[in-house]
Amino acid sequence: MLGNFMYCNPTRLYFGEDALDNLGGELKKYGKKVLLAYGGGSIKKSGLYGQVTAILKESGKEVVELPGILPNPTSDKLYEGCKAARENDVDLILAVGGGSVCDWAKAVSVGAWCKEDPWEKYYLRMEEVDNRIIPVGCVLTMAGTGSEMNGGAVITNHQQKLKIGHVFGDNVFPRFAILNPRLTFTLPRYQMVAGFYDIMNHITEQYFSGTDDNTSDYVMEGLMKSLIHSSLIALQNPEDYEARSNIMWIAAWALNTFVAKGKATDWMVHMIGQSVGAYTDATHGMTLSAVSLPYYRYLLPYGLPKFWRFAVNVWGVDPEGGSDREIAALGLGRMEAWMKELGLVMSLRELGVTEEMLEGIAQGTFIMEGGYKVLSREEVLGILKASL
Amino acid sequence: MLGNFMYCNPTRLYFGEDALDNLGGELKKYGKKVLLAYGGGSIKKSGLYGQVTAILKESGKEVVELPGILPNPTSDKLYEGCKAARENDVDLILAVGGGSVCDWAKAVSVGAWCKEDPWEKYYLRMEEVDNRIIPVGCVLTMAGTGSEMNGGAVITNHQQKLKIGHVFGDNVFPRFAILNPRLTFTLPRYQMVAGFYDIMNHITEQYFSGTDDNTSDYVMEGLMKSLIHSSLIALQNPEDYEARSNIMWIAAWALNTFVAKGKATDWMVHMIGQSVGAYTDATHGMTLSAVSLPYYRYLLPYGLPKFWRFAVNVWGVDPEGGSDREIAALGLGRMEAWMKELGLVMSLRELGVTEEMLEGIAQGTFIMEGGYKVLSREEVLGILKASL
Repeated sequence: MLGNFMYCNPTRLYFGEDALDNLGGELKKYGKKVLLAYGGGSIKKSGLYGQVTAILKESGKEVVELPGILPNPTSDKLYEGCKAARENDVDLILAVGGGSVCDWAKAVSVGAWCKEDPWEKYYLRMEEVDNRIIPVGCVLTMAGTGSEMNGGAVITNHQQKLKIGHVFGDNVFPRFAILNPRLTFTLPRYQMVAGFYDIMNHITEQYFSGTDDNTSDYVMEGLMKSLIHSSLIALQNPEDYEARSNIMWIAAWALNTFVAKGKATDWMVHMIGQSVGAYTDATHGMTLSAVSLPYYRYLLPYGLPKFWRFAVNVWGVDPEGGSDREIAALGLGRMEAWMKELGLVMSLRELGVTEEMLEGIAQGTFIMEGGYKVLSREEVLGILKASL
Repeated sequence: MLGNFMYCNPTRLYFGEDALDNLGGELKKYGKKVLLAYGGGSIKKSGLYGQVTAILKESGKEVVELPGILPNPTSDKLYEGCKAARENDVDLILAVGGGSVCDWAKAVSVGAWCKEDPWEKYYLRMEEVDNRIIPVGCVLTMAGTGSEMNGGAVITNHQQKLKIGHVFGDNVFPRFAILNPRLTFTLPRYQMVAGFYDIMNHITEQYFSGTDDNTSDYVMEGLMKSLIHSSLIALQNPEDYEARSNIMWIAAWALNTFVAKGKATDWMVHMIGQSVGAYTDATHGMTLSAVSLPYYRYLLPYGLPKFWRFAVNVWGVDPEGGSDREIAALGLGRMEAWMKELGLVMSLRELGVTEEMLEGIAQGTFIMEGGYKVLSREEVLGILKASL
């Protein structure tokens, strides 16, 4: 564990098939006005909308509904939410949906009472929050982003062709989150496996960094092994409660700040993937799967010991089976086979990316430090070309 | 992940060499009167006492000192603390020391304003807290118990020959904890390695239970591997910051409720060890090390798949090297070798236990369900005899 850090995760997380029974008790802690946010209407089909609105009614809440928060929530939708939250002076934002709805809710929670344009202040300028924050609660319907237990909120500005995530402090974390693994059963297969890879990539972004001996790396190996195991069971039977519940739990822990504490982290796959998302509006997890292997294969020589360890400890590659470089490459090969078995998108072309877009995507990529090599703009472009 | 559960850990944890710099900021959140609790005076020798009292003074606090909280804090010391906290109407209890001081502080935090005898209400009758709770903060000087980030508080009543732990809810968790790994460097070797085994046993108590496929088991394998690795480095060089910081972090996560969520747990080694402690006042971690192997060897046939997995995944035993039973036994054999290398106490006799005490220790042992076999009183006695 390197350096100094503070760890605090105040989110109260209710897990299990009966998790929604706790919503009423949580609602008591907040005032009368609730902004109920959700996506494209799948919660109406599943019956969840009816359950949640009944609990809100029983709790005597005045509800302002804001539907239509689609994947990759936009700055325009953020402005709409800020206006609704402020004009109705809501006491709680209740996000019902996946990571996009949760992210949007957190962005509105800091944006509603922001005296300036929240996109400019909190995304372009990445400033600290210095205004009133509206509490957020989540009812999660998809496992992947980890948004239910952290302060992250990714917003896309299509005019500026930018998709940016701001990681806010623990005062912006959801106050409570309701995680019923059964709610994830009805997710279409494409979204399900995209979520699986989003989780995997959250872990690898934090794993492939640093050369110290760090407890977090051991924990992440455990999380990855459990994820790989459960993902293959869920692929065969999406209604396997044990597998889906393990995956939902891993998703939260992969990105609730725990494994990042005291550790270097990378995040370049997310940076490149988000820039792809700004150009294509593609499913987040698939933008990550499309660029991951070219990126990690390029990085391998710079972080060889960790790629070797990944191969042996996570994928069970025989440590005596070749040179260090060969063993490390075998690990990425096994990851590739797993990704293909899941049916992930393995090239940018499948997401609608054209050769002409690559330069713009490279330009829109935030280059972060922390990985085994800090990329130049040309190297980002090279990885994009290899991912096409 | 089985069943329904709630996870919430509100403790704000400051970690690192400069962690104490955050004490002043935390103190601002509480009123003027602070009960400063510590142990036998080692914090005066190390200079920590001077640092903490200087920060308290700068923060304008009125300090009531309560020293002399020795290992295995007693019900008498609990009464003394409750009286001091109540009569001075303190706003915060600041525990500076190891797990005993932290445990004591939490017991006082619920006991001070308890209208009855807190030992009877919260320990003998294990009731829920329904009175005012005084906030607790910790400055930790030893890694082991995990008390800095949970609601547990073990108290010993020598008259009744009972040592009982009550696990209180998240409203009793320390509000903040300051963890500087460097503060653990000066710990005598006996206490250091006892702490290492306390951590290990917290994990094995939660690992050796349940037959489901559970993410927590994968995470615990990671925690154990990191602990074993770092413990051997610390044994050679107690001032290896990397190793001691990993161990301090593992101690917190081994018992901050995370790995127990959605999982069966055992705790019989602790139950037997605590009864030994009530008779001998021995160092907690050593009571656990003395009874662990006889207990686990007795349990092995009832939980064979998990003991096999422990051998292969934690200790690197060759899965092809024998029958399942042989492989499982080899795992415990490797754990035994590691325990001996650390210099742990391997028999109850070394702790002053005599044959005559065994019947009483067995009678004083709380028999819990959750392990691979629910023990009878005779089986407890058998394990004690095998541990002598």
